[in-house]
Amino acid sequence: MIVEASAPGKVILFGEHSVVYKGSAIVLAINKRARVFAEKRNDDRIFMDSEDLGYSGFFIGDEYHPVKGAPWRGRSLTAVNLVSRKTMEKLGVQSGLNLKLRSEIPSAVGLGSSAAICVATAAAIDGLFEGKLSREEICALAYEGEKVIHGRPSGVDNNVSTFGGVLKYEGGVGFEKIILDESPCFVIGNTKQKRSTGRMVQIVSELRQRNQSIVDEIIETLGSISETGLSYLLKHDYKHLGELMDICHGLLTSLGVSTPMLDKLVHASRESGAMGAKLTGAGGGGCMIALVDEERMAAVEEAIRIAGGSPMRVDVSYEGVKTRRVD
Amino acid sequence: MIVEASAPGKVILFGEHSVVYKGSAIVLAINKRARVFAEKRNDDRIFMDSEDLGYSGFFIGDEYHPVKGAPWRGRSLTAVNLVSRKTMEKLGVQSGLNLKLRSEIPSAVGLGSSAAICVATAAAIDGLFEGKLSREEICALAYEGEKVIHGRPSGVDNNVSTFGGVLKYEGGVGFEKIILDESPCFVIGNTKQKRSTGRMVQIVSELRQRNQSIVDEIIETLGSISETGLSYLLKHDYKHLGELMDICHGLLTSLGVSTPMLDKLVHASRESGAMGAKLTGAGGGGCMIALVDEERMAAVEEAIRIAGGSPMRVDVSYEGVKTRRVD
Repeated sequence: MIVEASAPGKVILFGEHSVVYKGSAIVLAINKRARVFAEKRNDDRIFMDSEDLGYSGFFIGDEYHPVKGAPWRGRSLTAVNLVSRKTMEKLGVQSGLNLKLRSEIPSAVGLGSSAAICVATAAAIDGLFEGKLSREEICALAYEGEKVIHGRPSGVDNNVSTFGGVLKYEGGVGFEKIILDESPCFVIGNTKQKRSTGRMVQIVSELRQRNQSIVDEIIETLGSISETGLSYLLKHDYKHLGELMDICHGLLTSLGVSTPMLDKLVHASRESGAMGAKLTGAGGGGCMIALVDEERMAAVEEAIRIAGGSPMRVDVSYEGVKTRRVD
Repeated sequence: MIVEASAPGKVILFGEHSVVYKGSAIVLAINKRARVFAEKRNDDRIFMDSEDLGYSGFFIGDEYHPVKGAPWRGRSLTAVNLVSRKTMEKLGVQSGLNLKLRSEIPSAVGLGSSAAICVATAAAIDGLFEGKLSREEICALAYEGEKVIHGRPSGVDNNVSTFGGVLKYEGGVGFEKIILDESPCFVIGNTKQKRSTGRMVQIVSELRQRNQSIVDEIIETLGSISETGLSYLLKHDYKHLGELMDICHGLLTSLGVSTPMLDKLVHASRESGAMGAKLTGAGGGGCMIALVDEERMAAVEEAIRIAGGSPMRVDVSYEGVKTRRVD
């Protein structure tokens, strides 16, 4: 029996960086998914075939044995191994596994690829053993994997990937599900420059140490933008939502997390008709997001491509993690 | 007899836009000057030869008669005519004049070219008639010309051009002279895109109408940056001064007054070793300013040139308006 589980990636609309200190972040699940196909093995190996990450190999316990690609045991695979073992532990089963990992979500650019893989891993294994884990339990298992990859992640990515839709996250407070009766269209522009979220958080923290009151004022304003932006999203006021995205990009720039390439893609999007554009996620590379009317979609995608980025149209996805038996 | 007067241009270090609402601006006189050569004529015409503006012609009263260039009576020439007549009125004299206007200050890019021309005009005519106008009186006469060009100018440009050095300007409060015992070096990058200060002020005002509390928070932060930036300037702490310039650029970007070209020149400067860089003046074109160590000067100038801008090294000039008899 093969069980497939899939889970969505995410994009941050507002609140990156500022949420570390104050206020909320608005995060959207997107219609780009990671898929994990799981089947049992007769030994105790957990074999992983990850086309997207460019390697395959297996774990015996915590020990990685490469079959293809780097002999280096990537943190992503370690995370998947951990989630697999913790999921089986939770289910009270023991088995070897074949896991095929596939993803439409570009990795290491702030779109929640690793969380989606972890969520789908837990769900696929749950399905394989006909378990009855709740979504909350799957989310918590995925979080164990996220900790391997990101150190002290906020939990935003595994939550939005598990439940789908729109989440408002407030540090130290928790998550609130936001229901929209209509969602705008976005184009994501990928700079293809990978970066570490932790490193970017560190850069802002150091800037704040040197300029505390000024950086605190900027963080405060980013918090106001999250709140106001959410109200525009709920009212379908995309003109003003776009304008807030532009303002937000400037403030993130002032925190030193934009790059020439991100700025270039942001300008290209605006000039080709986006209603607003900003970097999304930690910055320092990664992606930007543009709010775009249906009829300007092709023009904005083309402008991003010409400017050297990789465009990807995304819609908000209300479909969280889901599981199906393949054979 | 020919009398030459010259007066410096200026660059805004901090406080553009925000000073319209709150807080202070820090403005530096630069070692690029406008020159006016004045001599008497035997008729009542005021003849102007303005190589830089690309036209020459004369006024009889308020009526412009072109000799070379556009038949259009440029506001700059109208301003010079007004300053000339008001200066003679103040001196209690009447005469025709030949005025030769020359300037090292690029016009219409926020470097105070028109104010420097007006200041030099008043001073040259004062010198020609061996008047004894005070600097304050010359400054006030130049302001009459500035009003013709800019509508309701702050008075920053004519003040800094008259007195030289560094001024702290606070709207509704006035000017404070700042004495530095050491000044940093700057490179100005000119996008060569002319823009109207009034139009850019209008753009910010409209953005504020739509997003008042958020824009007010940004303006507040820009005010804090002016104060902190001045303290770094006084302490010669250029590392932190540069960092504040970077933060300030992001905030001005969030107000919608940067352009792709300004961002490009700012990035090029930083990447080639500037300690900090920001747009200066109203934005929407015009210039950016980079804080640069002596040894990185050539690299930054070259980077600005490659990025499509026109670089200009400037130092703070303590020499305000000055007058000399030429023959």
